[in-house]
Amino acid sequence: MRPLEGVRVLDLTRVLAGPFCTMLLSDLGAEVIKVERPVFGDDSRAFTPFVGGESAYFMSINRGKKSVTVNLKHPKGKELVLRLAKLCDVLVENFRPGVMEELGLGYSALREVNPRLIYASISGFGQTGPYREKPAYDLIIQGISGMMSITGPDPDHPTKVGSSIADIFAGVFGAIGILAALRAREVTGRGQWVDVAMLDSMLAVLENALARYFATGVPPRPMGNRHPSIAPFSSVRASDGYVNVACGNDELWRRFCKALGMEYLLEDPRFATNSERVEHMGELERAIEERTSSMRVEEIIAKLEALEVPCGPINDVSQVVEDAQVLAREMIVEVLHPKVGKVKVPGVPIKLSDTPGEVRAPAPLLGEHTEEVLSSLLGLSREEISALREEGAI
Amino acid sequence: MRPLEGVRVLDLTRVLAGPFCTMLLSDLGAEVIKVERPVFGDDSRAFTPFVGGESAYFMSINRGKKSVTVNLKHPKGKELVLRLAKLCDVLVENFRPGVMEELGLGYSALREVNPRLIYASISGFGQTGPYREKPAYDLIIQGISGMMSITGPDPDHPTKVGSSIADIFAGVFGAIGILAALRAREVTGRGQWVDVAMLDSMLAVLENALARYFATGVPPRPMGNRHPSIAPFSSVRASDGYVNVACGNDELWRRFCKALGMEYLLEDPRFATNSERVEHMGELERAIEERTSSMRVEEIIAKLEALEVPCGPINDVSQVVEDAQVLAREMIVEVLHPKVGKVKVPGVPIKLSDTPGEVRAPAPLLGEHTEEVLSSLLGLSREEISALREEGAI
Repeated sequence: MRPLEGVRVLDLTRVLAGPFCTMLLSDLGAEVIKVERPVFGDDSRAFTPFVGGESAYFMSINRGKKSVTVNLKHPKGKELVLRLAKLCDVLVENFRPGVMEELGLGYSALREVNPRLIYASISGFGQTGPYREKPAYDLIIQGISGMMSITGPDPDHPTKVGSSIADIFAGVFGAIGILAALRAREVTGRGQWVDVAMLDSMLAVLENALARYFATGVPPRPMGNRHPSIAPFSSVRASDGYVNVACGNDELWRRFCKALGMEYLLEDPRFATNSERVEHMGELERAIEERTSSMRVEEIIAKLEALEVPCGPINDVSQVVEDAQVLAREMIVEVLHPKVGKVKVPGVPIKLSDTPGEVRAPAPLLGEHTEEVLSSLLGLSREEISALREEGAI
Repeated sequence: MRPLEGVRVLDLTRVLAGPFCTMLLSDLGAEVIKVERPVFGDDSRAFTPFVGGESAYFMSINRGKKSVTVNLKHPKGKELVLRLAKLCDVLVENFRPGVMEELGLGYSALREVNPRLIYASISGFGQTGPYREKPAYDLIIQGISGMMSITGPDPDHPTKVGSSIADIFAGVFGAIGILAALRAREVTGRGQWVDVAMLDSMLAVLENALARYFATGVPPRPMGNRHPSIAPFSSVRASDGYVNVACGNDELWRRFCKALGMEYLLEDPRFATNSERVEHMGELERAIEERTSSMRVEEIIAKLEALEVPCGPINDVSQVVEDAQVLAREMIVEVLHPKVGKVKVPGVPIKLSDTPGEVRAPAPLLGEHTEEVLSSLLGLSREEISALREEGAI
């Protein structure tokens, strides 16, 4: 048994935030019926690079879902969505606020059809507030939210996080909202509207930056890989890359120097205590790198690990996917795609001992399950389905 | 009613990943009993900066919880935890793997006491695999996971995300695991072990970087704020900061040039199509910044918004917390702390229409609820509690 077995999700989402949310639900056992527009499907089906004619990006975050084509602008298409929603526990959409209402598929309309439906809307700025209809891209949300103002090599170069974390956090908080609403429904018998915004989600994860600002009145700035109040606690340069080190106390600092044959630094008064080291952080880094920049990453890590100094490499993606721990945790899994063959995708980060989730199936081809879903759930005949197809409704 | 009303959580977590998880559960209505070591409490109570003698950091992520001091190394302290766990639905811990077993509080021991208990362990590398006992800091996990290898101003400067997202994603995936396990328990009647790792969590959110690498064999590198295949889709320099712009198609590019009085760029063959602009990205940026670098952020945004070109500022934290949308969405809320007075903390990013979550109370003082919890849940008398205190068990 999987934990969300028996939960049926009508998935009207595209690109990233919404599909990431429904991917999590699918991995945990929900049945996810992805509704895509005929001919083109989810925009991300067109995102490069392609493997065997299919988008690698699309295949990665849509594994395990069913695909049904429906034209939401066609009256009969809309009718199909309403009929499907009646049979679902959850609907997820990530259109710009207002679009679902214009289609006649807003929460108030859907609640009429199915009062038990949990209706989750994931958007850039949320369903309320002055910016609600503004276009939102991950880059723009990372900028507005302050996340970029604390990321980067130095105060003058605010930098985007490499992964689209505004989208992803919104998807993940959306999943939590849906699970919480499923639980509430068991008491109230009612569904509800779950409204999650990328901007809200970024605010919720600024963490220390917000607390620090409210306490001091000084907005934090990017400081590269340094720790604001511990040193050395950053990346040190090697001949072939960088090593992250975390010397959280003076004892670790001593072991760090010993491991790398730099005992002479222990005599230097500029580096005698953590607060001295923080004060002279630039000089400290230069002194360390004088030695480490001629050593290889592997060598530095072996020496530090021998003395149990917390450290690690800065892996690139080719190294990550071969990492012993990543493999042991099954965080890279293979699915067999009917058209492309074997496809590697990230595993499930939520490990449950009794009812584990899993990557159950490859991503669907566009409309792969249209007939199956319309006939099994709505009882449509082959002829009715053909007629809908000819009319452009599916 | 709140969605997790009736769920009682025994919270043995410290610092960030675990406390972030139980904060989400508390905001959604769970009763969270935070167990802290006597005298010092959660390590993060000592993290600077302080407000009114209390850590701003601690207060931010422990709002709404109860604090009970228990010495886990004292036999009677351990006994109290076992008795409390019998009355809880969920236990969350983020010690290094193995520590809870050594304390006699591992999952197998707790399952004996309460077979319905959901036992969530959040750790750096997970409960299994060769690295399970390695020390894990957010910096080190961001490095190993590949997240740093795709973040930064240029390929040679892998950069840490400013917020501790390895901790936070692990906390958030932990919350999803707990909610999924609560649902499974309704069918099976059994609890289970939820095992979430910071490293696994980072792998799960590398997103496009993994898909792209598996498709092409080329590990992606940091590329600043640029988009790999669209231009201009990045940060452009203004006289007083940067503006993020997202010109996803040629029509937006035309409007972008018109808005900023740069129609002459539309004539330049190097910039005629998106693929030309991507190919000449450096020249494009220089050409744009020749004009924008003498304009103010506010002015650029006003002009772009007038022609509906997607854009936004790179706010610092002082600007974010005054942003009209952030305020309208109640993403900064105030709680009244008994010792410190008004404290601002991030709001709840999961907006539910029928059973909303909320920030319910300030963070607790160390041991503020020890007597209340031990007397009301375990029926201990004032004398028994005093005796435990004298023995150093609480």
